[in-house]
Amino acid sequence: MPETCAGLGVLPAGDAAMAAGLLAGDLRSLAKAISLTESRRPDHRLRAQAMVDALLGHTGKALRVGISGVPGVGKSSFIETLGLHLLAAGHRVAVLALDPSSLLAGGSILGDKTRMEQLSRQDGAFIRPSPAGGALGGLAAHSREALLLCEAAGYDIVLVETVGVGQSEATVASMTDVLVLLQLPNAGDELQALKKGVLEVADIVVCNKADLDAGAAALASEQLRAALHLVRPRSPHWTPPVLQCSARADTGILEVWQAVCRYRDTMRAAGEFDQRRRLQALAWMWQTIEHGLRRCFDADPAVQDALPPLLDQVAHGGMAPVAAANRLLQRFQRR
Amino acid sequence: MPETCAGLGVLPAGDAAMAAGLLAGDLRSLAKAISLTESRRPDHRLRAQAMVDALLGHTGKALRVGISGVPGVGKSSFIETLGLHLLAAGHRVAVLALDPSSLLAGGSILGDKTRMEQLSRQDGAFIRPSPAGGALGGLAAHSREALLLCEAAGYDIVLVETVGVGQSEATVASMTDVLVLLQLPNAGDELQALKKGVLEVADIVVCNKADLDAGAAALASEQLRAALHLVRPRSPHWTPPVLQCSARADTGILEVWQAVCRYRDTMRAAGEFDQRRRLQALAWMWQTIEHGLRRCFDADPAVQDALPPLLDQVAHGGMAPVAAANRLLQRFQRR
Repeated sequence: MPETCAGLGVLPAGDAAMAAGLLAGDLRSLAKAISLTESRRPDHRLRAQAMVDALLGHTGKALRVGISGVPGVGKSSFIETLGLHLLAAGHRVAVLALDPSSLLAGGSILGDKTRMEQLSRQDGAFIRPSPAGGALGGLAAHSREALLLCEAAGYDIVLVETVGVGQSEATVASMTDVLVLLQLPNAGDELQALKKGVLEVADIVVCNKADLDAGAAALASEQLRAALHLVRPRSPHWTPPVLQCSARADTGILEVWQAVCRYRDTMRAAGEFDQRRRLQALAWMWQTIEHGLRRCFDADPAVQDALPPLLDQVAHGGMAPVAAANRLLQRFQRR
Repeated sequence: MPETCAGLGVLPAGDAAMAAGLLAGDLRSLAKAISLTESRRPDHRLRAQAMVDALLGHTGKALRVGISGVPGVGKSSFIETLGLHLLAAGHRVAVLALDPSSLLAGGSILGDKTRMEQLSRQDGAFIRPSPAGGALGGLAAHSREALLLCEAAGYDIVLVETVGVGQSEATVASMTDVLVLLQLPNAGDELQALKKGVLEVADIVVCNKADLDAGAAALASEQLRAALHLVRPRSPHWTPPVLQCSARADTGILEVWQAVCRYRDTMRAAGEFDQRRRLQALAWMWQTIEHGLRRCFDADPAVQDALPPLLDQVAHGGMAPVAAANRLLQRFQRR
């Protein structure tokens, strides 16, 4: 076994081979490992977690970039154009998607790989569609693991795409180093952005399709700058810039990437880059613990026995919610 | 002991007397009982919960109205003017406050009782300032208990005031039957409302201080109506109306109250009034359970032993967050 594979010995033989292939940059191994993280089978979940754990020393070196925007804003053309530039500059680029709407909309983002036809044909690019639906929490867990696997496979830039539907941006912001928010250059759109609270987690805001109507793009940019003033800044060292680009005409894309790099350098100099990753890791741990506690509780036979009549009494005013909660907690603790 | 006091026998003698006084409408007993719910002493918490539980059969009959708005919108004049009208119509009115900003701002809403000088001097009115600060979750638990105690004391209308700082409106909406959102009649304010997501939980929107500039109030109302179209309706049976009033000039206040009553009647007819209360009670139960589980976990000696080195490893990339979470959960379950 090559030196880089030290530590994989704890895995079952098949998984160790998969992990070694992944470390060597084998695309099929990476794809199979990510499928394991997406499975709902408990044994698959455990194997996926063990693999991520064994590969942890090979992760953390990529720049993690979230990209969000409402449907129709042009996320895939933006990613394709940006991705081709990054490959030309010698980077290896992985594209992941986190799409909580996929169950409702029948699989929207990245489901159709032909949307990034050029990028997907390049060496050095890896594109993975969003797993089919499920709760946002579950999707987030899969995406975090997939991101780490891509890093272990040697991708130095990971783009995580999400669709602007409220909570998903915050989730992507909680697993990436920088969040780029794409906007359409029309008035009214800035209300939409505010409404969903997405500006609160955006580090860089970009009007895409600025070539269609330069006047509208300039106006929308002004409104976005005004709206950003209403939002509490995430860092004292960074004011989110509002840029313009056209993915179709390939104008302004490199400027967006320069802003991403400027953000990374500024945050590193301020010590906030590593700090954000540390806080993300700890938040992920506590979230996992809280889900686990609730799972233990729900699976507890003493709780399951007592629950139905208590639910009924609480719903109909026969018992105070806190009293019912305490009774259930006592049963849980006594086991 | 009078018949209404059946069930108080489970309480310690002093608390049973306090509860009996409260049921008889004694203001000092009510104030003392609410103080018990606000205490952080664990024995006080248990006594408060027992009292709420013993009084549960006397609760649920009031109309619970949340009132929210940014500082300066005129919440206290609005509540004073509305409260005097309600007293004149024969109601008994309790006013509670839930103010998560009170720690930061040094006690803002209702801290200064003289702000509702006229109302506070009336028989049939009970005004209780927000307890000093603390986490929103804790404040919410106190306010829910205080609300039930006011109902047991015979108040048939409970107004719960909160300051528009983001999450607090949603919390007040989760314990009241209807949420009235006060707005200032100036452009830009509607952006503020959207940003904070408060329109999503508002059932009735009111431009206060409409006497200052009729044109501005009309424009702001239009903008609010447009903004409400962007928000998913809470009920298929109700479109939140946008009204205008001036608490100072006492115009439009009764129209706001008529809208509250129309909302109540519409929701009752649709079966949604009781449904909302049932869901609120169940959500409160689950929230209490999740807090309790986390408290058990944090207090567990096996967890406390293992936590510091694991936190360190997770923060510095030496262990995957999920692996650390699972190790801690195993320790917790094995105890």
